[in-house]
Amino acid sequence: MSRPNRATSDTFSHTADRPAVTANGRTYAWPKQPAVVVCFDGCDPAYIEAASAAGVIPTIDRMRREGFATLALAAMPTFTNPNNVSIVCGVSPAVHGVSGNFYLDRETGAEIMMVDATPMRAPTLLAGFSEAGAKVAAVTAKDKLRKALGHGLVRDGLEGIAFSAEKADEASEAENGVAEIEALVGRRAPDQYSADLSLFVLDAGIRLLETQRPELTYLSLSDYVQHKHAPHAPEALEFMREVDQRLAQILSLGARLGIVADHGMSDMSVADGAPNVIYLSDLLDAAFGPGTTRVICPITDPFVRHHGALGGFVRVHLQRPGLSHSEVIDVIRQTPGVAMASPREEACLRFDLPADREGDIAVVARKGVALGAHARDHDLSQLSGERLRSHGGLEEQVVPFILSHPLKDNVPVPLQLRNYDVFSVLLNDVAT
Amino acid sequence: MSRPNRATSDTFSHTADRPAVTANGRTYAWPKQPAVVVCFDGCDPAYIEAASAAGVIPTIDRMRREGFATLALAAMPTFTNPNNVSIVCGVSPAVHGVSGNFYLDRETGAEIMMVDATPMRAPTLLAGFSEAGAKVAAVTAKDKLRKALGHGLVRDGLEGIAFSAEKADEASEAENGVAEIEALVGRRAPDQYSADLSLFVLDAGIRLLETQRPELTYLSLSDYVQHKHAPHAPEALEFMREVDQRLAQILSLGARLGIVADHGMSDMSVADGAPNVIYLSDLLDAAFGPGTTRVICPITDPFVRHHGALGGFVRVHLQRPGLSHSEVIDVIRQTPGVAMASPREEACLRFDLPADREGDIAVVARKGVALGAHARDHDLSQLSGERLRSHGGLEEQVVPFILSHPLKDNVPVPLQLRNYDVFSVLLNDVAT
Repeated sequence: MSRPNRATSDTFSHTADRPAVTANGRTYAWPKQPAVVVCFDGCDPAYIEAASAAGVIPTIDRMRREGFATLALAAMPTFTNPNNVSIVCGVSPAVHGVSGNFYLDRETGAEIMMVDATPMRAPTLLAGFSEAGAKVAAVTAKDKLRKALGHGLVRDGLEGIAFSAEKADEASEAENGVAEIEALVGRRAPDQYSADLSLFVLDAGIRLLETQRPELTYLSLSDYVQHKHAPHAPEALEFMREVDQRLAQILSLGARLGIVADHGMSDMSVADGAPNVIYLSDLLDAAFGPGTTRVICPITDPFVRHHGALGGFVRVHLQRPGLSHSEVIDVIRQTPGVAMASPREEACLRFDLPADREGDIAVVARKGVALGAHARDHDLSQLSGERLRSHGGLEEQVVPFILSHPLKDNVPVPLQLRNYDVFSVLLNDVAT
Repeated sequence: MSRPNRATSDTFSHTADRPAVTANGRTYAWPKQPAVVVCFDGCDPAYIEAASAAGVIPTIDRMRREGFATLALAAMPTFTNPNNVSIVCGVSPAVHGVSGNFYLDRETGAEIMMVDATPMRAPTLLAGFSEAGAKVAAVTAKDKLRKALGHGLVRDGLEGIAFSAEKADEASEAENGVAEIEALVGRRAPDQYSADLSLFVLDAGIRLLETQRPELTYLSLSDYVQHKHAPHAPEALEFMREVDQRLAQILSLGARLGIVADHGMSDMSVADGAPNVIYLSDLLDAAFGPGTTRVICPITDPFVRHHGALGGFVRVHLQRPGLSHSEVIDVIRQTPGVAMASPREEACLRFDLPADREGDIAVVARKGVALGAHARDHDLSQLSGERLRSHGGLEEQVVPFILSHPLKDNVPVPLQLRNYDVFSVLLNDVAT
């Protein structure tokens, strides 16, 4: 470690009277104890229920009993990037602009991967605290997300830290605010297709708490396990047990802990195990002619092995002048397995999305159905014969929202809580 | 008229420094000019577009051009009572408790019609202004709604007025704060199954503005025309023209005007004109046995002739101990035409609904599909051979939000506006 350790007292005596920090119109009280938010990627409430019934998550069970636990809504579409960015900005995609992992630029027609902070239009509350003098750490599973979540965090004169488990071996003071992560954690950076990727994030967070004691820590896991395994599967239960043990360590270090998920997870296979997919481009090509529409799957990312770029939400762009929006939308709505199809303006209103990055039509599948472009665009061999489990639609919007501490007496239980309210509730509304 | 006329100046000189009124945690500035909100029942945005294209709504067109116009979301389920009550309370059904026209009491098993103010748990902002000394008028199409919307408005010592077009001939000072409505409007109370019911509401509002000049007026129309006629039908266009002419009169009296709808309207028939209905009780009886579930259609009201109690949203109550929620929900989700099925806790989170009045499972149909209980429960002869047009689901959540005046310069265009924000925006955010 290149920086001196800090005392691990339960409070930051020197920060007692620090003013609140404002980001994107929301105000956050300065933490009196280290505050840690875990984004438990793909942690559908069903994983909590199954693991609790199996007795493998005593820490989470205690948080639910003695702290605060409810369900919250994730931002639509229910993908990783829009929700992680929403959580660290405290606002919806309409404000911060990241409405998918991937989008079609309406101006240029170019397909844009949201692999860094470029598409972000709002500052993060993490950067806000960092600029106000707090030590802030963001640790992600995948490096693409680190670039977005660490935006404005690692700069000269600030104490910010932002790195990914995926690229832990490449971390540097200049780029990440910390180096020699593998030495810190005590093991090699894990394979990006592994359960250990998430555990490494948690272990790194624990070691940072022990050594540098950030006022604010954001730990964003990977949904590798949830894509592969249903809630009652032994692999899922084992993963939940491993995560839970690390949450216990975080609490033992005096932190206040909040847990949310970026999205839930649904089985999208039919009874015999085959993926239950609507290939929308194939359908629309047949109805209106090849190339008249373009289907964008915003789940697409460089890390697609476990879902074949198939999820419950896609965007349709009309490519032929004069093609009737209402005819296309009618064909989509009549397709069995489609729950909703909305023209752009309605989709943006309904899902709080930025209009310039929305398709002409936003399509949501019903529970258990995946949406794709052309069948040829999706490599199902990546699934290795496993059932398709994925997310993206309305049904994966319901996620756990669990805090280590109860709410203050005078704070009403919020209505229609969002996962991106977690920093606000943890910092402002939890009993001291 | 039993009360003296008031001068019809454009401003209320005596109210210039009245303090703002707070209701349900929201604050509303005292109106400087008479403020009128019209709840344009069933006015899907398609009616505005069709009528605008036909050139029959010059007043609304001018409001859209020179004032403020956008789309907003109605409260779910998209029925009349939940949305009217939301609008006059400024909050969602989770707060005020009216989550349908009709519900099953979970404690007693009794089916409860929401025909009066009994189910309301929140005061209205209309009553708040009335108590603060404003003259407030609420005129509704149907009398059931008058009882709810007039709650706390007509009392000794207050100047509140609340009556319905349906029972205009029965209005009394004691019950309605005004009598002899037919003399005021200059014609007899119309039949409740008529386009004139809405026009009578508007005419009564105009006459009240001319004679009593309320500071705040709420005019709630009927969706009789929209249930019967598609947006481009001559009858719909004629109705839009008639409404528009009355809006012009309201504006000519110096009022600030806001227009929203309680819900949109969708064609729910198949190509040959037959209603496109899923009779969910019949399906669930076949799957789980007669009487094991009970389907409540919360669109039900005493005024069902034009929709046969069929809409896009129903609640399922499990009636047999031990019946598996997840098995029932799976059967519902697999039913073609169903968009979503949510267990109670998720439905309440997702749609901001009160838990004690929610079913065990809330079901939403896809666009163009109606949900019913048993086929025998629904009298389709009421449709008189017309296509079924109805509402209740997510697709009817998108409604117009149109103001006569633009927003103040420093007010950002709100994200995810709700129809029940209309009083707040009209009173607080409109340019003076």
